Amino acid sequence: MASEKLNIPNLKDLTMDNITENVNLINSQTLDPRLKYVLERLVSHMHDFARETRLSTKEWMAGIEFLTAVGKKCTDVRQEFILLSDTLGLSLLVDSIDHPKPSSSTEGTVLGPYHTHDAQAQILGSAISDDPDGEPLLCLCTVRTTSGKPISGAKIDIWETDSKGSYDVQYEDYSGEKPDGRAVLISDDEGVFWFKAIVPVPYSIPHDGPVGKMLKSLGRHPWRPSHMHFMFEKAGFDHLITALYLRNDPYETSDAVFGVKSSLVVDLGTVTPEHVKKYDVKEGTKLLTYDFVLVTDEETNKLREQKAKEAMEKLGRPNMKIVEGLPIPMEDVD
Amino acid sequence: MASEKLNIPNLKDLTMDNITENVNLINSQTLDPRLKYVLERLVSHMHDFARETRLSTKEWMAGIEFLTAVGKKCTDVRQEFILLSDTLGLSLLVDSIDHPKPSSSTEGTVLGPYHTHDAQAQILGSAISDDPDGEPLLCLCTVRTTSGKPISGAKIDIWETDSKGSYDVQYEDYSGEKPDGRAVLISDDEGVFWFKAIVPVPYSIPHDGPVGKMLKSLGRHPWRPSHMHFMFEKAGFDHLITALYLRNDPYETSDAVFGVKSSLVVDLGTVTPEHVKKYDVKEGTKLLTYDFVLVTDEETNKLREQKAKEAMEKLGRPNMKIVEGLPIPMEDVD
Repeated sequence: MASEKLNIPNLKDLTMDNITENVNLINSQTLDPRLKYVLERLVSHMHDFARETRLSTKEWMAGIEFLTAVGKKCTDVRQEFILLSDTLGLSLLVDSIDHPKPSSSTEGTVLGPYHTHDAQAQILGSAISDDPDGEPLLCLCTVRTTSGKPISGAKIDIWETDSKGSYDVQYEDYSGEKPDGRAVLISDDEGVFWFKAIVPVPYSIPHDGPVGKMLKSLGRHPWRPSHMHFMFEKAGFDHLITALYLRNDPYETSDAVFGVKSSLVVDLGTVTPEHVKKYDVKEGTKLLTYDFVLVTDEETNKLREQKAKEAMEKLGRPNMKIVEGLPIPMEDVD
Repeated sequence: MASEKLNIPNLKDLTMDNITENVNLINSQTLDPRLKYVLERLVSHMHDFARETRLSTKEWMAGIEFLTAVGKKCTDVRQEFILLSDTLGLSLLVDSIDHPKPSSSTEGTVLGPYHTHDAQAQILGSAISDDPDGEPLLCLCTVRTTSGKPISGAKIDIWETDSKGSYDVQYEDYSGEKPDGRAVLISDDEGVFWFKAIVPVPYSIPHDGPVGKMLKSLGRHPWRPSHMHFMFEKAGFDHLITALYLRNDPYETSDAVFGVKSSLVVDLGTVTPEHVKKYDVKEGTKLLTYDFVLVTDEETNKLREQKAKEAMEKLGRPNMKIVEGLPIPMEDVD
């Protein structure tokens, strides 16, 4: 038994100075070394947070009540904890850790809480939005490798709001049967995928719940700049979760969830007469073009491991092992 | 406007290396300097946690789902977030920070999630438990100052489980109208308070929810050693939240919520013939005696501030101010 090796502590007379090491010691009974490491860092940071702020019982209770309200606000179509993670920058951070990108590839950004699995597979050229009030937008995109080779057969999940700034799932009568502003496309042999959408608009993240209250007390607005989400999947390549943002949006530099990156900001054009004929769109239709670049799993794994090693060295625990892509201090590996 | 002084960042191109300072900068728009400091430490620790563990998207999502489940489990009579805080040692830590005790006083311990405001004021000598299966226990206690002077008129809130290890609120048909195992007493002119209760038994914290699952994955049991809760309130004295534990309980050194302190562990005695007559109890009744010692607000505040100063120095931010008893770095005070 692995437990025989453990030094189970005598959990008595715990004080603000010795509680952390003892909680970590009792938690180290887990047989999962990665869970042990994650919990050890979690407990250590949570305790240091309380010690450094001298967290009062009243503040602690306010925190308990806040987290409870966040949980209560969650439904099948509203994930308030993801909103909380988004608005505190954790989502962007986790994406950048899990999906490191070489400079030659398309950057990732926050997934947000509105991706669903309702979108239907559609053929190239489909109109993904049924909103008659949206400004039509022709989207001509490609997906390639870092060396410029077209990637065919990539699955591309696309989602955007309607012209009022709401995703389909945000409507009370949404049933999942008629998704709108969503599609799943497959890139063709030239790595091309194209579709008809509407020009994205800014929208505020839901702020009628506890996260909205938090933003208000912090003097922050709840707006996201106009954007369209894209998620790419193709065997052998790292999952890419990203979005394109419109230049000169009023919230371009103050996104409530920290998602904007210069390389993902685009200028919309206008279709040419050739486009009008070829893609069957009206004159004057807005045009979005973008060439996405995916990274191979191999390249991503290498980069992720290299950054994990650097982080463990910085933490003073260079003696580590990568298990299933994630670092574990050597002392925790059997 | 205070905001004119702020350097609102350009929130674009945020990476794993610069996201933290930028989130903290945008949060610093709050006009509440204590909130600013607490959020700064919270965001910094949360981000460092993700960076040090190289938290994966899958693990992040498991965390989101865990917290959501914890929130969903909360009801008026079940506070799963408090259980989570208790089982990760945060509750004990916050109590020890907020209620520092000089060595001459009674130590505090975790409040737990079962205190209610349903308990009725009762006269000294009342029986607080209606459980016919409980082993009768006579409790003779006093409450005094650190210099030994009796404290009269202290409000003492007492709560314990029944003989099956369940608090009244844990029963499905509990309405709040007939609290059991609870009382609020007032100490008399000699600082004495006495009552009839039942001998406490060990019980497991609720483990049919997400916190129970967490304990299981960590190889931990959910048991608390036999104890009785006490909460003291008296103007001029620091609120004392504590409990007494029975010596040689099987869980004395492995309390699931880290509450046991040697000074709070008691040996039960048996009543004398004099007790039988004076307190109208049966021969052989178990006896619990304890002399509680409260600390003045003044003493507590002084100790709390001293420890806050030490913590801020340790953090490398000695230039601080105490506002309403809590530390704020000077750079954040207008």
